[in-house]
Amino acid sequence: MPDAPLRHAYFVSDRTGITAEMLGHSLLSQFEGVEFVEITLPFVDSVDKAREAVRQIDAAAVATRARPLVFSTLVDPQIAAEIARADALFLDCFQVFISPMERELGISHTLEIGRSHRVKDNAEYTARIDAVNFVMAHDDGVTTKEFAAADVILVGVSRCGKTPTCLYMGLQYGIRAANYPLIPEDLEGLQLPASIDKYRRKLFGLTIDPVRLSQIRHERRPGSRYAELENCRHEVARAELLMQQEGIPYLDTTSRSIEELAAVIVHQGNLQRHIF
Amino acid sequence: MPDAPLRHAYFVSDRTGITAEMLGHSLLSQFEGVEFVEITLPFVDSVDKAREAVRQIDAAAVATRARPLVFSTLVDPQIAAEIARADALFLDCFQVFISPMERELGISHTLEIGRSHRVKDNAEYTARIDAVNFVMAHDDGVTTKEFAAADVILVGVSRCGKTPTCLYMGLQYGIRAANYPLIPEDLEGLQLPASIDKYRRKLFGLTIDPVRLSQIRHERRPGSRYAELENCRHEVARAELLMQQEGIPYLDTTSRSIEELAAVIVHQGNLQRHIF
Repeated sequence: MPDAPLRHAYFVSDRTGITAEMLGHSLLSQFEGVEFVEITLPFVDSVDKAREAVRQIDAAAVATRARPLVFSTLVDPQIAAEIARADALFLDCFQVFISPMERELGISHTLEIGRSHRVKDNAEYTARIDAVNFVMAHDDGVTTKEFAAADVILVGVSRCGKTPTCLYMGLQYGIRAANYPLIPEDLEGLQLPASIDKYRRKLFGLTIDPVRLSQIRHERRPGSRYAELENCRHEVARAELLMQQEGIPYLDTTSRSIEELAAVIVHQGNLQRHIF
Repeated sequence: MPDAPLRHAYFVSDRTGITAEMLGHSLLSQFEGVEFVEITLPFVDSVDKAREAVRQIDAAAVATRARPLVFSTLVDPQIAAEIARADALFLDCFQVFISPMERELGISHTLEIGRSHRVKDNAEYTARIDAVNFVMAHDDGVTTKEFAAADVILVGVSRCGKTPTCLYMGLQYGIRAANYPLIPEDLEGLQLPASIDKYRRKLFGLTIDPVRLSQIRHERRPGSRYAELENCRHEVARAELLMQQEGIPYLDTTSRSIEELAAVIVHQGNLQRHIF
């Protein structure tokens, strides 16, 4: 089978490049049969840096014998014009929307770089930091004493993805997400421990394919009983049974990204975001 | 002074809405003098849900006497067409780029919802989880024994923003970010502790406005000597002196978002990302 054709994709920004990356990555994922090499060029905030970026893009065009795709969120039209001279498909993710917005709002945009990442207000910043601290302090059931202050409590077997999902919810949405691992004792008794039973309405479950779980656990504790496929199958089956029995909604983490897990939990759990 | 005019802005997506949110928020931040109410409508994946969304958007138009702005990343043209019927400025952040991409690549897009959040491969997922675990295990200088495995070690006074920045670098870039607080002993002696001195090339510093630091510390330990403005001023001044003396690059976190701090450190530190 011949290799898929190769294309370079550049995300060019005058700031972090995260917006261009996210939009561009999402668009590229719609095309199958092409292998994309994705490169972010952040902080391109002068014509000189733009020229340097153009040299890099043009070199990729020569090397791959195919025009790269360039996703730009550049605010300054002069810098954008410089990038548009590259031997590439130039996709302007900024200007294309700014003009109709200006017409709709009846005002001009500020032409100021870096506004989107400005700290809006201290309240929002504090909410974010508080949520992150809360997640750190309540990871892995370390302490259950402040569960009353949690927006949500994730439950599931060890290593099913609770920690990163909680952290993402804290960072992205300012949500105070605690988590509590269902341990073999809980699973054998098919009963929620008393410490979380009283917060039943805050519980959201995660589950995972036992084969994947076994792989993850083997990386952590190679050759352990804990990581054995048989044991993983058993734990997952009991955990799902317990969650069904207790009416706890749950999601399978196996093929979902952390972003998606977090968004689904916020949506299904009707959670109040503290960051917008 | 009259209130700024109010506009609703909707981010409509068939999946998480994070891409629409990020792009839309960044575009809205370019307009001053309008107060935007930002609302995400995720998982709009049927015509029925689209109609429900339209009802919500139209109600906002009536209530505010101004057409809302709608940023859409909907993949399905039928669902997008339904949303476009709302009494709003409809900004299609998907189709506008897909058509030129199809022409450039000479292939059609897959028309499949949710591709951007699919887990690309287990290697990338593992890199992300590993990085998050690493950050959790190495927060606040808890252990320095694995600093050899760190991609970067953030240093700075207590509460200057090290932890959330490390977590963001782990989640977004898969970077193993440790952090180490500069404590009064280090600051008085103007000397790096031996445990981090040997990893000097991995060090990146954070600093903060003492007034802001004092506020943050007062929230955590009200009325403490630790939180006093005078003490914060002293600690920050000594920390900056130490970092200058040791040639450690550093950033002021006061008015920067966590995303921006992370992106700048990755860029300036020339760090290798493990997630693309």
